[in-house]
Amino acid sequence: MGSQEARQPLLPTSSNTVGKRLIDIPRSKRRLRRTKSAPHADSPHTEITCTGNVPDTGPVPRSGLIFGNIHPSFRRAALVLIIYLGIGTLCFYLVRYQIKGEKTNGIVDAIYFTIVTMTTVGYGDLVPNSPSTKLLACAFVFTGMALVGLILSNAADYLVEKQEILLFKAFHRQQNGHCDIRKEIDTNKARNKCIVVFLILLLFIISGTAFLVFLEKLDFIDAFYCVCSTITTLGYGDKSFSTRWGRLFAIFWILISTITLAQFFLSIAELNTERRQKSLVKWVLCKKVTDLDLEVADLDDDGVVGAAEFVIYKLKEMGKITEDDIAPVLKEFENLDVDQSGTLSKSDITLAQLS
Amino acid sequence: MGSQEARQPLLPTSSNTVGKRLIDIPRSKRRLRRTKSAPHADSPHTEITCTGNVPDTGPVPRSGLIFGNIHPSFRRAALVLIIYLGIGTLCFYLVRYQIKGEKTNGIVDAIYFTIVTMTTVGYGDLVPNSPSTKLLACAFVFTGMALVGLILSNAADYLVEKQEILLFKAFHRQQNGHCDIRKEIDTNKARNKCIVVFLILLLFIISGTAFLVFLEKLDFIDAFYCVCSTITTLGYGDKSFSTRWGRLFAIFWILISTITLAQFFLSIAELNTERRQKSLVKWVLCKKVTDLDLEVADLDDDGVVGAAEFVIYKLKEMGKITEDDIAPVLKEFENLDVDQSGTLSKSDITLAQLS
Repeated sequence: MGSQEARQPLLPTSSNTVGKRLIDIPRSKRRLRRTKSAPHADSPHTEITCTGNVPDTGPVPRSGLIFGNIHPSFRRAALVLIIYLGIGTLCFYLVRYQIKGEKTNGIVDAIYFTIVTMTTVGYGDLVPNSPSTKLLACAFVFTGMALVGLILSNAADYLVEKQEILLFKAFHRQQNGHCDIRKEIDTNKARNKCIVVFLILLLFIISGTAFLVFLEKLDFIDAFYCVCSTITTLGYGDKSFSTRWGRLFAIFWILISTITLAQFFLSIAELNTERRQKSLVKWVLCKKVTDLDLEVADLDDDGVVGAAEFVIYKLKEMGKITEDDIAPVLKEFENLDVDQSGTLSKSDITLAQLS
Repeated sequence: MGSQEARQPLLPTSSNTVGKRLIDIPRSKRRLRRTKSAPHADSPHTEITCTGNVPDTGPVPRSGLIFGNIHPSFRRAALVLIIYLGIGTLCFYLVRYQIKGEKTNGIVDAIYFTIVTMTTVGYGDLVPNSPSTKLLACAFVFTGMALVGLILSNAADYLVEKQEILLFKAFHRQQNGHCDIRKEIDTNKARNKCIVVFLILLLFIISGTAFLVFLEKLDFIDAFYCVCSTITTLGYGDKSFSTRWGRLFAIFWILISTITLAQFFLSIAELNTERRQKSLVKWVLCKKVTDLDLEVADLDDDGVVGAAEFVIYKLKEMGKITEDDIAPVLKEFENLDVDQSGTLSKSDITLAQLS
């Protein structure tokens, strides 16, 4: 078992615990360490290098980032969105005489109608007026919902994360280095996400209301009412964007603001989950360990509980892993343990290669 | 270490593996078993007793079931929904003269308007016509969205699960006992859920279309178009429920069908996640174990890898747990290991109680 220099002791060195030390045993028995090379599928931040020179405007490097500066899932979502909007615009432009309602510019109306349909706002200021157009709209709203789901699950996180760093940089410019910011963002991830999404949402509500008051000449209450009715995708349709410039603005504004509101609700749900999870972890860790716990945690039945057995027992109590996760791995372990010693050693590997 | 009868050996008995057995070691070393008393937070089915007499019409018993036959999260969601609809109906009934559009019965219209607003369908056949009513509608659509989220996350699963069992019973009546059904449902949980939700959705689309054709006298295309426009919460509003009986039907139909469609999209997403997770688990388990793997997995640095260490290493590779989950538990372990032996035994517990 070479490469000692690659290992870091995980527990504090024995100097802090000298007072407690009652029985002397070989030092190698007490050293627990991190399994360095195992991948960490859901902690994208662990790969960020803390060199203090993260580029100011570039996106955050994450695991899975392949194509230069743009996150691949964001690229995919953007690509699908562009294709969807392209086909939608073409279709609804071609059937524009079978759509009734207030018309402005043919192409603007077609994009606007596609966006209003895709986001399920559905004002009703433009409505399909022939059987084929109605069926086309049905097809577009179903695929649109799926697409919004794709964008929500893939790309929104990326945007929020980028925004988060910019925001924290602005607030904490005096602090020493980017690593502190990064660390602080990680600690309160869900809470910060909520705040950031809420601030973005507020910005969209204000900008939308201002636009409707100054350019569409609505009074303040009507403008706010139209904004709320739009971002929630309610879309009664008694107030909507009726000028060419209004609809051009609406194309971008509706798409981003509806997704931001959905993201806001999602981040609140995430925050709740994280809080519950954190308090459960705390409770499980603080719970007094009894003789019975030891007996149950003793996976290999040797009368004592090792560090790894203890970790598995506690993670099960926290609900992070279940018996169903463990069973197939234990089966694999038994297959590998050719000499049936209850442990895997180099001789098992050699025996497995021979057989 | 008493109560041997409560323990079940997890691995097959040595009789199946006699051929492989090369080195003889004490039997107690080789027995790995399930840690029976640790709770399993996210496997609701593990507590179902396989007695073969699950009641035919009753709901599935799940962990956390407290109040008789109804799941508490379902009760909570239903309660919040009833309060919301009650307040909504009262408010919009009181301001009914400040709402313009096609009116039928005062109370039916108030409930109908509350549902159409809450689900963000927003036909626009009834719209608020005064500043205070507009602000009221804004408040109701935001809280309505949050409520739909609550219902989706809490109660829908329960309904689907119940439906699943009924459906599988109908299809597999010839099979021996309920345990087989339960097992089969567990194995393809996400796929079955997709199918069940899709069938329910289809039922709602057909019933809604039929209702609009026969009672609201729409032609077939218009009825189908109105159904699609409603369940997706698009709600253009050129076709909607305009009679008293139509709106009474719509109250229930809109609420359930919109939630079912959202649930359908969610279950597809779940299916994708499960498939990806399953193939990752398979890949991690089939991967050849090398000497380097052993070295990295050896948490307590004793030169061999025990079953528990192997489980932790593999679960980390699968991304089910991360270093952040393990670190606090290891810290707790070190605190408990008073005699610093690298293992927890009854003497540690006694020493901890003394200090």
